[in-house]
Formats: sequence, C-alpha cells, structure tokens
Amino acid sequence: MPKISQKGIVVPASPIRKLSPFADKAKREGKKVYHLNIGQPDIETPAGMLNAIKNIDFKVWAYTASEGTASYRTKLATYYNKLGYNITPDQILVTTGGSEAIIVSMISCLDPGDEVIIPEPFYANYNSFACQCGVVVKPILSYIENGFALPAISEFEKLITDKTKAIMICSPNNPTGYLYSEEELLALKALVLKHDLYLFCDEAYREFCYDGLKFTSPMHLDGLDENVIVLDTVSKRYSACGARLGCIITKNKEVYQAALKFAQARLSPGMVEQIAGEAAVDTPDEYFTAVNAEYTTRRNLVVEALNKMDGVFCPNPGGAFYVVAQLPIDNADKFCQWVLEHFEYQNQTVMMAPATGFYSTPRAGYNQVRMAYVLNTDDLSKAMECLEKALEAYPGRVFEEEAESLKQKA
Amino acid sequence: MPKISQKGIVVPASPIRKLSPFADKAKREGKKVYHLNIGQPDIETPAGMLNAIKNIDFKVWAYTASEGTASYRTKLATYYNKLGYNITPDQILVTTGGSEAIIVSMISCLDPGDEVIIPEPFYANYNSFACQCGVVVKPILSYIENGFALPAISEFEKLITDKTKAIMICSPNNPTGYLYSEEELLALKALVLKHDLYLFCDEAYREFCYDGLKFTSPMHLDGLDENVIVLDTVSKRYSACGARLGCIITKNKEVYQAALKFAQARLSPGMVEQIAGEAAVDTPDEYFTAVNAEYTTRRNLVVEALNKMDGVFCPNPGGAFYVVAQLPIDNADKFCQWVLEHFEYQNQTVMMAPATGFYSTPRAGYNQVRMAYVLNTDDLSKAMECLEKALEAYPGRVFEEEAESLKQKA
Repeated sequence: MPKISQKGIVVPASPIRKLSPFADKAKREGKKVYHLNIGQPDIETPAGMLNAIKNIDFKVWAYTASEGTASYRTKLATYYNKLGYNITPDQILVTTGGSEAIIVSMISCLDPGDEVIIPEPFYANYNSFACQCGVVVKPILSYIENGFALPAISEFEKLITDKTKAIMICSPNNPTGYLYSEEELLALKALVLKHDLYLFCDEAYREFCYDGLKFTSPMHLDGLDENVIVLDTVSKRYSACGARLGCIITKNKEVYQAALKFAQARLSPGMVEQIAGEAAVDTPDEYFTAVNAEYTTRRNLVVEALNKMDGVFCPNPGGAFYVVAQLPIDNADKFCQWVLEHFEYQNQTVMMAPATGFYSTPRAGYNQVRMAYVLNTDDLSKAMECLEKALEAYPGRVFEEEAESLKQKA
Repeated sequence: MPKISQKGIVVPASPIRKLSPFADKAKREGKKVYHLNIGQPDIETPAGMLNAIKNIDFKVWAYTASEGTASYRTKLATYYNKLGYNITPDQILVTTGGSEAIIVSMISCLDPGDEVIIPEPFYANYNSFACQCGVVVKPILSYIENGFALPAISEFEKLITDKTKAIMICSPNNPTGYLYSEEELLALKALVLKHDLYLFCDEAYREFCYDGLKFTSPMHLDGLDENVIVLDTVSKRYSACGARLGCIITKNKEVYQAALKFAQARLSPGMVEQIAGEAAVDTPDEYFTAVNAEYTTRRNLVVEALNKMDGVFCPNPGGAFYVVAQLPIDNADKFCQWVLEHFEYQNQTVMMAPATGFYSTPRAGYNQVRMAYVLNTDDLSKAMECLEKALEAYPGRVFEEEAESLKQKA
C-alpha cells in the first residue's frame, strides 16, 4: 500500500471537531447539548442575499473570471471604500471562502521554510494552512490578563529571523474577541516596515465591534500598501458560512499577480455565491444594528455570568462573537470531554472548545476554553447555568485564587 | 517591498487565458470571435439542478460537514454504484470543484519533491497544482499518430525513481479526447501494483463517450482499492462549471483520513451547491442522451472539417469535447495569436489553445492546437471555415507531407 504524505500525517485534525463523538453520544443518551464550540452563527442570512439565490435566471451555470466577476468586485469595492480602504476592483481577488484567501496568500508570499509570526491563541486552522504550504508558524503569546492585547513589539523582535516573511493578525480576534487598537496597528506598521514583512490581516469579524469601539484596519494606515494583505469572507458578516465566498485585498501588484495565477489554476469562485454576494452589499444598516445589539446582549450575558462563577475569569472582548475564559480546572481538554461524557444538569450539557487547540506553545491555555455566543439568550443562560454546575462537580477542579485576583485587576 | 514567493514566480500563468488580450482587441475591432479555446460548455444545466437553487428554503446559509452532507454523499454513492464503483458514502469527500479534489489528493499523498508521472499532453493546471504542492511532474509523451493512446508501459518504467509516488491520468482526456481502454487500464494496474504507486484518475468527462465506446474506470478493476483515487466534478457532467462542486473517491482509508484533515481546515464545501448536486443525480437519462448526440454531431463536424484541410491531421477522439489537431504551421503560439491579431474572414476569427501549454517537454506540440467543441454546429462550421482560410493566409505555413501521411495511416 502506498504511504500517505508526511504532511498528511502531521496536519492537525480539527481541535474543535474532535469532541464531536462525545457530543453525539450525549445526544444519543437524550441530553440536550448547548453548542458553544463552533463559530456558526444562528443569525439569519439577510433576505436580499437569499432572494438573489432564489431569483437566479441563468441557463448555464458557468465559470466566472478567476479573479471574480467584474460586477461583484466593483460592488465589493464600494463596500470597502465606504470603510475607507481606498481600493479599486482590480485590487480584489474573489476566493472560495476566507480559507482559500489564506492559502493563496500564503503560497503567493511564502515559500516552504519561511516563517510567519502569529499572536496566540489563534484560529486553529492557520496551522493546517501553514502545514499545507510548508510554512512555519512562530507563535507569540498573548495573555488573558490584559484581554489578549497585542504582545510587546520587543517580543516580536526576538522571534524575527532571516526566514521571517510575515506577521498574521486577526482583528476582531477569533478566538479571543480582542479588537486591536489603532495604536497597536501603528506599532505593527513600524515593525513590518522595519523588517520588510507582509502583514496578513484576517478581518472576518470586522462588522462585530461593541461598546462604541471603532474598527481599524491596517488598510487605514498610510505607507503599508506593499505590505498589507487583507483576508476576508462573507461567512460571518452576513451569517453565510456555507457560501464559501471570500476575497484577498492587496495593493501590492506582484502579490496580486502571483495570487491570480494560483486562482486561474482553480478556474473560478462560485457563480451563485458571487450573485448573492453582490446583493449582500446592499444589506441595510439596520440588519447590522440589530445583529450587533443582539451580540452585545449575548456577550454581556456570557461575560457577566462567567465572572460571577467562583474561580472563573473572562475578559470583556471588544468584538467578534467569542470569549476565552479561564476556568478553575486542571486540563481543558479533559474538562470539555468530561462535561459531555459524564455530566448533565437537568438533562442538559455544554460543548466548548478547549483553548489548547488555539495555542502552539505546549501547555499554554491548559485551563482556558473558547465559547462562541451563537445561541439565543435563553439558551445561553441555560448553558451558563450548566457550566457553573459542571465546574462545581468536576473532579479535576483546582484552586482558584489566580482567577479571583485577575477579576480584581480587570 | 517584501518579495513574493519563488512558487508565486514560477507557477505558470494560464496558457489558455494568456491570449485573452488579443481576443479582446479583436472584439473591440468589431470581429466576431469563435471561442474554441475553453472548456465551458454552452449546453444548458439540467432544469432540476437550477430549480433546486431557486427552491432553497433555509434561513441560515450554514457550514455543512467538511466531508460534505451525509445526504449528498449518500445520493452520490447511488450514482457511482450505478456505474459499478461499489462504494459507500464514507468513501466520498466532497470538494470545492475538481480543482480542490486534485490539490487535496496531491497534498495528502505526495510530499515536496515526490514525483507524479502524467502522460502529456495533459490538463495544463496539473502543473500549477503540482507547483502549489511542491510536487514534481514527470511528463511521458503520448503521440498524435495513435490518437494519444497510453504510452508503452516500458516508457513509464524508464521514468520511475524512488521519488515516484503516483501516476495521474485523465480519461476521457482533456486535451486529447482520448478514452483509455480496459486493456490500457489493466496495464497501468500492473504497473502501479508493481511499484506501489497511487493512481490518480481525473474523470471529469466520464459521461462523454462516443461511438458506443464504454467508459472504464480503474474503480472497476479488482485489487486496486488502496491505490486508486478518483477526482471528479459536476462541472462538465451537468454543464455546471460555476458550481465548484467536486469530490474525491477513494477506498484507501488512510488517504481519506488525511484528506479529511485538510478538508476540515477549510471547513466546508458550498451548501447550495450540494443541494443542487443532490438534485442533479436525478437528471433523467434523456438529458445525457441528447447531450451526447449533440457532442457526437459536433465532434464529427470538427474532425471531418479538419481532416479535409490540406496539411491538417486530427485523430477521432472517443470522448470528452476536445480535439488536438496538427496544423501545417511553424509555431502554434504564434499562429493562435496571429489569427486573433492579424486575420479575419468575413469579419470573423477563431480563438484556439496552443497545444504547447499542455506539454511539459520543450517544443512538443509546437504545431498542434486544442479545440473545444462547445459551440453550436452553425458556429462550429463557420469557425472551421475561418480556420481553413487562416491556414491558407498564415505567413508561417509549413510543408504538410507529414499530416497527409498520418491521414493515410489513420
């Protein structure tokens, strides 16, 4: 039998999905499982987008241009220019989801062995994409103490070698919900210019900023045109994860041309998606106002409930729809599995993502979990109640002084 | 400015699309351009598939399972089992088009530096996918004299090294239209078993076999379960190129599990596509009967017209919707550009793909072009007339005895 590739052996299985068999078992046993583990919003996709699908009137479901249709890219440019990105349609390359945007950007900018520095915890699939491209991820720790703010630039400097080609950020962040400030982005700007690096910016959660905080993109900063590559997707913006429609935005022509060659090889992004994506740009502002109000309510509920629990600390994130909380537990992987396998409260339980899957540094995040607040407030309340009872019952519960002191400081 | 990757430099631009600026110019000059250069069929997508899109009734456009929905994979299995593949739904991994099926299979089976042998001329984008994965393509020449039949196994043997991990075929073939016989597949079977290789089979054109010829897949052969990986797409079968919906089929569990990890990283194939794909499996047989009759008529028209031209030789392919013809010209790249730039007949001209883009061996196919018969018969007749006039007028026309002798032998 021929052997599979080394990459096929080492590429990680999804840390979020590996608990699924235990959730399935819990359900078979009749338990209600609250899914806080995945970033699949329950929010409805805008009607305009769904109607665009229902109203298709073509006879041949044909390839589009590899870079995306002119009409969709033109429309997208108006969306980005409203945000102040100052771009033209030929600086947008439409991709099959944000995932393809990341893979194509990595492969266009980095060769096997090249290094990309990423603040951790980070979106776990970056590891898989890097593995696919032969790129080496250099994690840099951020800390729950300050809500996972940008690590000190001096810490980045320590990691930079002659192999370092890029820094990658996600803001608002998955998994932490942290929203980078303009000051933090200016510090990164100085760093990438000093070392001539690319700055990959995953902005999947751009629309979800709370408490009046303003979203700033590196696209808003002067002097970074050759360095910035924005990776985007409609998945979260329009609650359209199954659309698989994203894009790369860059003003760097060489990067665009290289990315286009990889895009040409795979021929075309989806045609129906681009029709729907074009309609989505016309989604009324009220949609986002309502969605943001809903997410703010949910975040407040979750953060408040968590910080009321003994030994639990949860920073109050400025964006996205995730929190990372520290729990009084010995091991998040064990705990998350135990909650599904051996616990129930009024026949209910909770599925969470152990934060260890979002760290590359061994043991980091061992007592942290990521929760996505993608359930309605009733269900979220019940899920929080379950979690509190689970923490009380968990045999691996540990001393909680640290969390209490973090809460005092926060 | 940071440098793009070496891969980004060397990955080839699409050989089919590089003549586009000349076609655009011809159109701006008011010429009618017959597009024989791309594999985008003009055939209508089955109504059942389009209706499935129009009738979607979900409120949240959500991720599906990374391997594809159970319901689509179950339906697909019935389609493949009708063909005699004897597979289960968990041997199917749904992908974003045939392109992703190829990339994920390559990355799961081959490491950078590993070699895959591919009979040439071959689908040009295999080069780009191999570049993306760091895989080395070892081309093996097939010849127009025998209609691009499988090269002798002894020629394959000469190319096999300790780096050889796979053989890749496409049947019916793009660009040649050649349909591998059961005997040829049995010869390949012995070869891959002898050297413990993977056999990648691109079967995008499976439905398009003519003259009563029977399609055989390596899936039909015993003893190859661990070796065969079928790469499929709905693009050509249902004239749904813009759907970006394909799949990997393999009975090799290790390959499937590795591919699934890469698939998990990119989360999900398109949801609407899978709904439409499920409906497509119910496309009535009459659809394919009509389409095949149409393609047969077109192929006959094109092959006959070409062979009537002085100095032109075109084998009669058994499948797909392409022909590769030998023309009395000095250089196919120059000729195809010249036809667009400097030629017109009754204000019409023709766009073809120089066959050189489908060969890796330097100079191979220098006097060959690929034509896709994806136009109606009226347009095809006019395109053939144009081509004949162009060949008469072309300043780089060369002596044609070879083609005439090939025609005698064929």
